[in-house]
Amino acid sequence: MKKFKRIPQHIGIIPDGNRRWAQNKGLEKQDGYRFGIDPGLELYDTCIELGIKEMTFYGFTVDNTKRPPEQIKAFQKACVDAVECLAKRDADLLVVGNTQSSLFPKELLPYTKRTRFGKGLIKINFLVNYGWNWDLNYSVKDRDFNSNDDLVKRIASSEISRLDLIIRWGGRRRLSGFLPIQSIYADFYVINEMWPDFNKEQIYQAFAWYQDQDITLGG
Amino acid sequence: MKKFKRIPQHIGIIPDGNRRWAQNKGLEKQDGYRFGIDPGLELYDTCIELGIKEMTFYGFTVDNTKRPPEQIKAFQKACVDAVECLAKRDADLLVVGNTQSSLFPKELLPYTKRTRFGKGLIKINFLVNYGWNWDLNYSVKDRDFNSNDDLVKRIASSEISRLDLIIRWGGRRRLSGFLPIQSIYADFYVINEMWPDFNKEQIYQAFAWYQDQDITLGG
Repeated sequence: MKKFKRIPQHIGIIPDGNRRWAQNKGLEKQDGYRFGIDPGLELYDTCIELGIKEMTFYGFTVDNTKRPPEQIKAFQKACVDAVECLAKRDADLLVVGNTQSSLFPKELLPYTKRTRFGKGLIKINFLVNYGWNWDLNYSVKDRDFNSNDDLVKRIASSEISRLDLIIRWGGRRRLSGFLPIQSIYADFYVINEMWPDFNKEQIYQAFAWYQDQDITLGG
Repeated sequence: MKKFKRIPQHIGIIPDGNRRWAQNKGLEKQDGYRFGIDPGLELYDTCIELGIKEMTFYGFTVDNTKRPPEQIKAFQKACVDAVECLAKRDADLLVVGNTQSSLFPKELLPYTKRTRFGKGLIKINFLVNYGWNWDLNYSVKDRDFNSNDDLVKRIASSEISRLDLIIRWGGRRRLSGFLPIQSIYADFYVINEMWPDFNKEQIYQAFAWYQDQDITLGG
């Protein structure tokens, strides 16, 4: 078992590159998403082994729903399948996203309140039909909100804690709207391989890098 | 003169590593900041040469003011000097930060409304005593704000446009509260050298990388 001097409490996962992976294999773009389920479960096992307390998966965003319908269907299904697989393991699950839109998969409505499955062991948040703009504006849509409140405490994703480390697959070095508040002081690690080519060595390398970072939070 | 297929419209600059640079030279930590002025002016020249339309410098943040007083004094002075130097060139200058705190340098108050110096040529934003939390909450402190408004359009930094590319010196791979809204889709490029060791080859390398990025904005 791998040991690190210091591990992140909460990691964010941006599982990018499914479409590019599919094209490289001669498949249709939308066929990539279903190859993203097993990597997620392997990552789950790795995080349990390492003692991670919380992880957040970037499922799909409101911006992603500008894509062609066959792709939308495929990533919606992949999110439903992933959440249902995790619900058969040990996890405190929470799905966060705009449920008031028809693009939110109805099958995931029961998961929008945090629920313990099995022995819990790890908090897992799954962003589904998530929008950074929706997340921030949610606070002020609340009738009880008043201008003296800290809006940061009232955002839609307020149950999700500050991120220590964000890992993005697929080589792109950008956050693409991933939890802007929780990402403020997160360290950002990019893996060039596509998400369906996940292997746990990638996580070990990310953690090996992370353990040597000097965390100051601006001080 | 360098040519690129595509250049960013708006770049963000996180000039980190002044303290580590000073320590490596056997100086006191706070002595690093004054070596950060000339790099800024050289970067200004490079951006004018390349045709960049807008740039935003991360001066200092509310979180940075937790540091020892001699450091606070040093980075305040460096910001004042930098803005006053830029005001002698061609630039549309704007300083954004919490002016209601005593930590905001009074010398910079005249710059908190965008002002053209010389022929303009480039928009330059300078964040001084900036806080991400202050920036976001600013919107709802406005008496005219109502819950149907998009708070993102009413933040304190709303005059600063979306960032295309953020370049951070000093090796750290994190945003540290830098304009969370404008950073949403920005590409993030990290230079391992410390900011006082700036040279324009670093910018050319960042731009060479940037020109090959596929910009999708989530679509």
